[in-house]
Amino acid sequence: MSETEIYQRQGFGNAMGFGQRPALLIVDFVVAFTDPAQFGGGNITAAVEQTVGLLAAARRLGVPVAHTRVVYADDGADRSVFCNKAPGLLRLTEHAPGAQIVPELTPVAGELVVRKTQPSAFFGTALAPWLLGKQVDTVVVTGCTTSGCVRASVVDAMSHNFRPIVAVDGVGDRALGPHEANLFDLQQKYADLMTCAAIAAEFERL
Amino acid sequence: MSETEIYQRQGFGNAMGFGQRPALLIVDFVVAFTDPAQFGGGNITAAVEQTVGLLAAARRLGVPVAHTRVVYADDGADRSVFCNKAPGLLRLTEHAPGAQIVPELTPVAGELVVRKTQPSAFFGTALAPWLLGKQVDTVVVTGCTTSGCVRASVVDAMSHNFRPIVAVDGVGDRALGPHEANLFDLQQKYADLMTCAAIAAEFERL
Amino acid sequence: MSETEIYQRQGFGNAMGFGQRPALLIVDFVVAFTDPAQFGGGNITAAVEQTVGLLAAARRLGVPVAHTRVVYADDGADRSVFCNKAPGLLRLTEHAPGAQIVPELTPVAGELVVRKTQPSAFFGTALAPWLLGKQVDTVVVTGCTTSGCVRASVVDAMSHNFRPIVAVDGVGDRALGPHEANLFDLQQKYADLMTCAAIAAEFERL
Amino acid sequence: MSETEIYQRQGFGNAMGFGQRPALLIVDFVVAFTDPAQFGGGNITAAVEQTVGLLAAARRLGVPVAHTRVVYADDGADRSVFCNKAPGLLRLTEHAPGAQIVPELTPVAGELVVRKTQPSAFFGTALAPWLLGKQVDTVVVTGCTTSGCVRASVVDAMSHNFRPIVAVDGVGDRALGPHEANLFDLQQKYADLMTCAAIAAEFERL
Repeated sequence: MSETEIYQRQGFGNAMGFGQRPALLIVDFVVAFTDPAQFGGGNITAAVEQTVGLLAAARRLGVPVAHTRVVYADDGADRSVFCNKAPGLLRLTEHAPGAQIVPELTPVAGELVVRKTQPSAFFGTALAPWLLGKQVDTVVVTGCTTSGCVRASVVDAMSHNFRPIVAVDGVGDRALGPHEANLFDLQQKYADLMTCAAIAAEFERL
Repeated sequence: MSETEIYQRQGFGNAMGFGQRPALLIVDFVVAFTDPAQFGGGNITAAVEQTVGLLAAARRLGVPVAHTRVVYADDGADRSVFCNKAPGLLRLTEHAPGAQIVPELTPVAGELVVRKTQPSAFFGTALAPWLLGKQVDTVVVTGCTTSGCVRASVVDAMSHNFRPIVAVDGVGDRALGPHEANLFDLQQKYADLMTCAAIAAEFERL
Repeated sequence: MSETEIYQRQGFGNAMGFGQRPALLIVDFVVAFTDPAQFGGGNITAAVEQTVGLLAAARRLGVPVAHTRVVYADDGADRSVFCNKAPGLLRLTEHAPGAQIVPELTPVAGELVVRKTQPSAFFGTALAPWLLGKQVDTVVVTGCTTSGCVRASVVDAMSHNFRPIVAVDGVGDRALGPHEANLFDLQQKYADLMTCAAIAAEFERL
Repeated sequence: MSETEIYQRQGFGNAMGFGQRPALLIVDFVVAFTDPAQFGGGNITAAVEQTVGLLAAARRLGVPVAHTRVVYADDGADRSVFCNKAPGLLRLTEHAPGAQIVPELTPVAGELVVRKTQPSAFFGTALAPWLLGKQVDTVVVTGCTTSGCVRASVVDAMSHNFRPIVAVDGVGDRALGPHEANLFDLQQKYADLMTCAAIAAEFERL
């Protein structure tokens, strides 16, 4: 019996459903995560390119947009145990080149920029209240990495009771095995997977 | 270049480190998750068996123990979008046979029993304050499923700044592909992997 | 210069505003908090009476309703530092008579019952996601005590970005000085104060 | 029967107790909150002066120190319903003169600076994990205002299971009535009140 069959027989993998008031959450598309010499590689650059079009659609149609960046204090005072596993994260300070959102996705006025130090965009941040204030019921997620901050953010989006939609071609990872493995988990349990094109069509429809 | 090499070159996969004051967190070892006809299967039963010994060591040595159960209201009033993906979870009510902790791990007085409806043991629960009150710095995790509530709980444990240790033979999943894929992610980014025997030895040492 | 003038000159005390999708949150109207020999007294019984009518209006008009209870584990395993200040709270266990919602406000199917151990109805609970799932933007608060769990819940409701409305005759306290002092703070900074009658009229209008 | 007697008869007002590993939390001692023409006045300046000595003691003895600032985005993108009540808060942006910590309390390397938009220093911030990582069990609070961000932070500190200690001469408010009323509530239910001198003596002892 395949893994998909196991999940199907136990009643997982049903549709989350796209709600009525989506927002677009772009996770950690910063310079260091698009550079293979830092934390990037794999299909991340391709995911950025797909996100450019989706972001344009969101802006045109008034869909709320939030971006996340990993930002640690200049003196590392907010270092946490996450840095035990990956000490290089501490280089991502407010003005570090690697910590800047990639130029093609530069935030515009009215878009939320979430500074975070943990995987989830929601943990210890003001993201959930911001989305709530916009009456959002559906969180479309692009960004990187699929197996890291994207997944953690999707799980938290769902736990906050937003419907998560993962832009399957708008998320990327430095290594494709974890990318695929995490898409499987996300689709079975936490989110619907849709292409950026299909998501943009939903934005249009609403 | 292998996936492990990619992570290594980018500085992931370092040791989290075992702290000085561990707790044992047993995630969702309830009847329904050990029954292949409900949500169980795979290596979950084996993981329960390994946990029995680790729990005994924790109790003997005074290591704080917390258990989680998935519990929904009898009338389903607390249904959330998680149930869109997996509606069967709603059957796990306070007195449902499937929602009971397996007999060999029955909690004893002084152990925390966390009722939850979301993947993470920490989300919307009193677990983090309870651990904090016990001056815990390290959270040893057993339970199921590796690709579900275990992983979500480990990510949150780390985000709360506890050092997560995953009992590699004390966690299980209904399907082994996701089990292995998630252990890879956990080891690279969020936790150290140790056997129950090695963890029990640490409990002894402290 | 009076206190009200100080706040006014500094730009506090403006209207929060009643939104479009209210919920009713009834805080800790349980037997022990209506009994002057336990934790009750003052104007709490009067507040219960006013809440009866408001609850009837909410039910008739389909306004979501959530109730809170203070509930500690039978073995006190979830004792926290709050119990240092007020150890009697530990008597409020699942089946303790004092921990039951007063008969005239007994929850009906579909209403959320939040079990909590801390002052705020939101802290370590699933309340915010539940309200979010109902697309709520306004949280009407009745309950007790004004200076305790009501205030803490209002501050958290606002922090989650819900508009808090305090039912001025539906909240009560064991002592009237703190009741009045807290209504002043709530009105200046966190909530609008309205009578149950005016709130019911808003429910009708929406 | 006085209010104090009512609380005493119901078992409130017991000692919280000073733990073994304190931290110092300095809430919102920024320029705008010490300026009576903005959000200051009352006894806030006196509280800053008392905090100077306590901060020196904390630094000398290695007690962890965290500061909070209210900081909104330059474009107001993170505006929330709190700003309905007090729209002037939106002026407190990253580089606004009013949003800077007062010169005599300027943070030094290793101290955490928490940016927040809500009353509590803990809500939507990384403060609790940071304190946890320092094995803190006791949070000493100075700052302003007693009836606002100090109180909200104390309630949340307690909810996270830290023992809160309020520096009775290190907290201040724009108006003395709410200051006194909130100290009453804090002492009865959430914290011990101690002078800065007595707290410094505890720091010495530990």
